[in-house]
Amino acid sequence: MKSLINTLPLGTELNEKEGVQNHPMLAPHGGNLTPATLATGLTRQDFLDFSVNINPLGPPDCVQDICSRSIDFLGEYPDPDYGELKKVVADAVGVSTDWIAMGNGSTELIYLLPHLIAPGKEAVIVSPCFSEYERAFRQADISVRHFTLDPSDNFNLPVDQFLFQLRQYPDLGGIVIGSPNNPTGNLLAEDAFRTLSVYCEKRGIFLIVDETFIDFASPQRSFIKHIATARHLILIRSMTKFYSLPGLRLGFAIMNPESVRKLEAHQPPWSVNGLAKAIGMALVMDKKYCEQTRYFIQREKNFLYENLQKISAIEVFPSDANFILFRLLAENEDKAKHFFEAFLFQGIVLRNCANFVGLDHSFFRLAVRSRKDNRLFLSKAGKYFHSISG
Amino acid sequence: MKSLINTLPLGTELNEKEGVQNHPMLAPHGGNLTPATLATGLTRQDFLDFSVNINPLGPPDCVQDICSRSIDFLGEYPDPDYGELKKVVADAVGVSTDWIAMGNGSTELIYLLPHLIAPGKEAVIVSPCFSEYERAFRQADISVRHFTLDPSDNFNLPVDQFLFQLRQYPDLGGIVIGSPNNPTGNLLAEDAFRTLSVYCEKRGIFLIVDETFIDFASPQRSFIKHIATARHLILIRSMTKFYSLPGLRLGFAIMNPESVRKLEAHQPPWSVNGLAKAIGMALVMDKKYCEQTRYFIQREKNFLYENLQKISAIEVFPSDANFILFRLLAENEDKAKHFFEAFLFQGIVLRNCANFVGLDHSFFRLAVRSRKDNRLFLSKAGKYFHSISG
Repeated sequence: MKSLINTLPLGTELNEKEGVQNHPMLAPHGGNLTPATLATGLTRQDFLDFSVNINPLGPPDCVQDICSRSIDFLGEYPDPDYGELKKVVADAVGVSTDWIAMGNGSTELIYLLPHLIAPGKEAVIVSPCFSEYERAFRQADISVRHFTLDPSDNFNLPVDQFLFQLRQYPDLGGIVIGSPNNPTGNLLAEDAFRTLSVYCEKRGIFLIVDETFIDFASPQRSFIKHIATARHLILIRSMTKFYSLPGLRLGFAIMNPESVRKLEAHQPPWSVNGLAKAIGMALVMDKKYCEQTRYFIQREKNFLYENLQKISAIEVFPSDANFILFRLLAENEDKAKHFFEAFLFQGIVLRNCANFVGLDHSFFRLAVRSRKDNRLFLSKAGKYFHSISG
Repeated sequence: MKSLINTLPLGTELNEKEGVQNHPMLAPHGGNLTPATLATGLTRQDFLDFSVNINPLGPPDCVQDICSRSIDFLGEYPDPDYGELKKVVADAVGVSTDWIAMGNGSTELIYLLPHLIAPGKEAVIVSPCFSEYERAFRQADISVRHFTLDPSDNFNLPVDQFLFQLRQYPDLGGIVIGSPNNPTGNLLAEDAFRTLSVYCEKRGIFLIVDETFIDFASPQRSFIKHIATARHLILIRSMTKFYSLPGLRLGFAIMNPESVRKLEAHQPPWSVNGLAKAIGMALVMDKKYCEQTRYFIQREKNFLYENLQKISAIEVFPSDANFILFRLLAENEDKAKHFFEAFLFQGIVLRNCANFVGLDHSFFRLAVRSRKDNRLFLSKAGKYFHSISG
């Protein structure tokens, strides 16, 4: 097999747009098939995309009808206050409307977060973490420090050690941590959260918890139950990963009303498109789809996890999300590239994690897909490791 | 008639969200019927909305099919580089792809403009002008000055006087001017543009021309013909006003590739939703709709203009856009409120222009609608002025 990416320097500036699109292993995010098509000559339809973290069940039925008459929702400017949408979302998560900020995807909200942090303050990102937080802070000239989690402890937060570290940073304005975290998949433990939150409230530090994958785990594990008492707690939520509509763009954040107002003062009007509003209002009513999804993801994740664990050449990490992180053992860069390409040319796209701070090219993130797709991956993985070991 | 807004202080902070929504005359933008429904008890369907500046013909036919299968465009993340969409848009306007920035509506791009302007620099807005420019600059801590156009000269730019003024501002980083301008409707004259552009290039000042209504006038009147030589020229375009899809959110800007890269470095990924991409690619092919629209708007605008001119109680301003600005003569605030409410309670929403810098409550902007709607407005206006004069 011709190695297309053999000569690429791993660890180059991956958030830069230029040049990245032709290097499929180095794509800055999952879910972008363009580099894979360019590298292989295959079409988008030829690929099974294990690099994207969306619900494999596809959108719920309630969306079909709204989509078929989508033109009805495009003829007017969106309500600039998102009043109706906020009401429905707020009711669904159990807060008042003024605790909700809506966004053109959760990503828009991430880019508004720096406005909450005073000039001269810095941010700590518990890493590995979704890379857009760092980009959002840096573009706003906020210094970013990383606190790196340890794979040998399953990426759990060692909260005492973390607090010790935080005490060294007198200008701290914000902390970002994922729960379940992307790409590691683990939830932040309740006691670690409590300790951290008390510390943040004392120092007036915003504690930003990315809960964009919480619906795949369990809504009961959300830290929303602490929102009323934790003035500096901010929860980031997505409505399109779980509902398999990433092209729609809809997310929200839950935080103190004062913070909502500050954040919205910097938000362009009409960010949330008319179709996203209509669909968003229907989605939160669909409890059955949520249960089906969690049942399905749990079952398939277990299936994948158990079978991945049988492969001695990899280490698998436990996950509370809809994806699994694993690591090639006894690897080197060339072997990681060989592994990635072997799947790519068979039409399977994986998410290499080299561009996550705290990980390297030996880490791969695998989306949970249908049993058929998961079986196919496992079968190819079995053959791959058999052929290279034998 | 009960006056709902008699006691409102006109000229309050209109860009503040709080409190505005219940005062229909003081809504910060047109096209938001919520305040009108709240004030009157009428439903959205009861209103003819003359306050919104969109194409009265409704979306072109080519959109119907795409909309009916919109779910097909929501299942994948949007291409973060918008490559295909940029190519089609760039071809349509006659520039290379790297001169195009795409946005979640032109408004997103307006909010990214401050990143092009060096810290400490200030901006001049030729006013009256679309109010989001000022909000975007101010939220980025860029000082804003207004150069106010004179109604008695039909809001034309007195370019020599303007340049004289600009020379007093040593820290100028950007100038904003609309063509056709909102809400005045007039195009910037070609010779005034040339003089201004030469001056801006010499001083390294960004010249931002809002051309969101240019398709209603004539694409030939766009200043895009100067884009290759004017390094600091930025043209802002909307794709949803002309195509009657304001809920879709799609706009673009045309500028030097270096500026595109700088601006995109601050843009969240996936801002343009999947349906907007699919529809955007179809829209630019539909030349017939463009011609039909221009013919229709021209005819109806003339009809409205000629008949408005017959009303001696108002002054009408000539327009190259799809709306007409007029002014109540011999007015006072109470009379303006009375006028606005008289129409509101008959289900007709006008855009009062009190919150445009350089205008006051005596100015109203009227969208060009269908002959039937236009006739209805003229008939009611005739009766109104007859009754108050008689």
